[in-house]
Amino acid sequence: MLTIAVDAMGGDNAPECVVDGTIQTLREVNNRLEVLLIGQEEKVQPLLDRENIQDLNLRFMHAPEVITMNDVPAIAVKTKQDSSLVRGLMLCKEKKADGFVSAGNTGALMAASLFILGRIPGVLRPTIYAYFPRIGPGLTNVVDVGANVDCKPEHLVQFAEMLTIYQRDAAGMETPLTGLLNIGEEDNKGPDLLKQTYKLLQEADRKNKINFIGNIEGNDILSSKASIIVCDGLVGNTLLKFGESIPYFLGSIFKPALEKLVTSGQLDPKAAELTGNAFKAMFQPFDVEIFGGVPFLGVDGISIVGHGRPSARALKNMIFMAEHMIEKKVNQHIAEALAEI
Amino acid sequence: MLTIAVDAMGGDNAPECVVDGTIQTLREVNNRLEVLLIGQEEKVQPLLDRENIQDLNLRFMHAPEVITMNDVPAIAVKTKQDSSLVRGLMLCKEKKADGFVSAGNTGALMAASLFILGRIPGVLRPTIYAYFPRIGPGLTNVVDVGANVDCKPEHLVQFAEMLTIYQRDAAGMETPLTGLLNIGEEDNKGPDLLKQTYKLLQEADRKNKINFIGNIEGNDILSSKASIIVCDGLVGNTLLKFGESIPYFLGSIFKPALEKLVTSGQLDPKAAELTGNAFKAMFQPFDVEIFGGVPFLGVDGISIVGHGRPSARALKNMIFMAEHMIEKKVNQHIAEALAEI
Repeated sequence: MLTIAVDAMGGDNAPECVVDGTIQTLREVNNRLEVLLIGQEEKVQPLLDRENIQDLNLRFMHAPEVITMNDVPAIAVKTKQDSSLVRGLMLCKEKKADGFVSAGNTGALMAASLFILGRIPGVLRPTIYAYFPRIGPGLTNVVDVGANVDCKPEHLVQFAEMLTIYQRDAAGMETPLTGLLNIGEEDNKGPDLLKQTYKLLQEADRKNKINFIGNIEGNDILSSKASIIVCDGLVGNTLLKFGESIPYFLGSIFKPALEKLVTSGQLDPKAAELTGNAFKAMFQPFDVEIFGGVPFLGVDGISIVGHGRPSARALKNMIFMAEHMIEKKVNQHIAEALAEI
Repeated sequence: MLTIAVDAMGGDNAPECVVDGTIQTLREVNNRLEVLLIGQEEKVQPLLDRENIQDLNLRFMHAPEVITMNDVPAIAVKTKQDSSLVRGLMLCKEKKADGFVSAGNTGALMAASLFILGRIPGVLRPTIYAYFPRIGPGLTNVVDVGANVDCKPEHLVQFAEMLTIYQRDAAGMETPLTGLLNIGEEDNKGPDLLKQTYKLLQEADRKNKINFIGNIEGNDILSSKASIIVCDGLVGNTLLKFGESIPYFLGSIFKPALEKLVTSGQLDPKAAELTGNAFKAMFQPFDVEIFGGVPFLGVDGISIVGHGRPSARALKNMIFMAEHMIEKKVNQHIAEALAEI
């Protein structure tokens, strides 16, 4: 049975929603997994005591310290060795857990994962991708979204290779398609970094490590042209945060407009409610909860990074993501692929 | 009286909408300006013959060649010397026109502007900005949006300085605020390029050339934190195109949802029409037509770059932009500011 260590203290709604999500998960999967919940006893135990959980594969482990969102990652990882985050990853390192899940300080989780778990042999830089909405079925991942800036061409190519393996093995996609995010479609476009990357991506395509479709532009991100969109972490991070701000921005225009139609008597409240719901539903493809979190791809272990404000559902999906990564042997396949010439 | 040269052949809807926009402009401003329309006689003259324009300050000038959207900018500028685009800029160079407006091939317009008009003394690289929507009053410009990739710190700082002058002198903003687009707010965040840029922006702030508010992130773009958002053209271009694709993307989800509510009898067609209109209106802040085009900031003359699919309204606003740049002496002020130490 797999044991997933879960950071009870990670995220704005922790530990409540982490505890809820963990219990929901174990009930839903009929104890298929074991969860090792790590956090401050005085905060977590009362939540567990409230629940009827004797039948669940749930263990609790006390960790007196907490790495918060305000902690500086590199410092926190060194000074807070008794935090849930560091302890959880140590359990993975010691093979007492098969994977670790946290919605806490992303920078600290990345730093600690790299420091404690190390890299898969051959990996230059582990990376974080994100899910973007798309028109039609399938999925779109943008990589990197902030774990790496000042990327070199060989870094970007490896991101594409690792994500190709993930999408093929874990997400069940037959042919993941890689596009290079650039300012134009022609192969001679863009900064020197991307011109060089273009050539290396072509080479990786010839070796069947990826399927490269060429440059794509910003207006292609939401289309279904590519399932893997490669860019430096500065670009990906900016896009991700920009995209996340759009539902609120548009809602702040649409909601008052709808209210005005109701108060002026042009629209009845029931119709406004229906269209308001359709409006909200429109942003479901932007909903990060569906995916919950993403693996820190390239580290020698399973470390799932969640969004800073997780829900119980998001937490559940993060645990499933860890399970999936392990069962589908994504890390082994990455190691094998990088060992090939 | 100012003479604005207008590229009749520029843009997907040219020459029709360019002719319409020009005539509308001259009627609206009571011949305050003179427009010199440049294009292929066989295409433009029939459109002019249809109109009653004897009273307008409108001259036509034949240019046998056309630079299309498919032309490679650097080549087209050299080989199509008899194009409306090259001839229009030449008229500016020869002081026979005070400014040039084109919604044609942006790359060719930038290349030709730089080649024919040259740079304002002290300008390292001319730049193109874009208007982004924002919450609340004021305006948000992102610079650069594709004219410059592989930017150095001193380029980015100069973009901020030039745009500060534009916003203060031409857009009437008392205190334009500059933010540096980065992956985090702290001053030690991001790639080396941006760490160095941060320091130079602080220095420019100390010299009162700009008002620097520090790093801002992707989710701040649509807020009202900064009126000037500085980034490399790769980032800005990607954001701009991504943003432009959002109305279509969301419409492709919302419209069918609304139709479904109508066909299932839950929503009456009148209510659907009202909310559909509110939905469309929501994207008005994304409407590039309002601004029409932007000046190619830093070239030694007035060259207004329009969107590839201009409307008559957009064309009109481009002509006004040229007039505004001239009357507010933006280029002179840029030259003066860059001459200061």
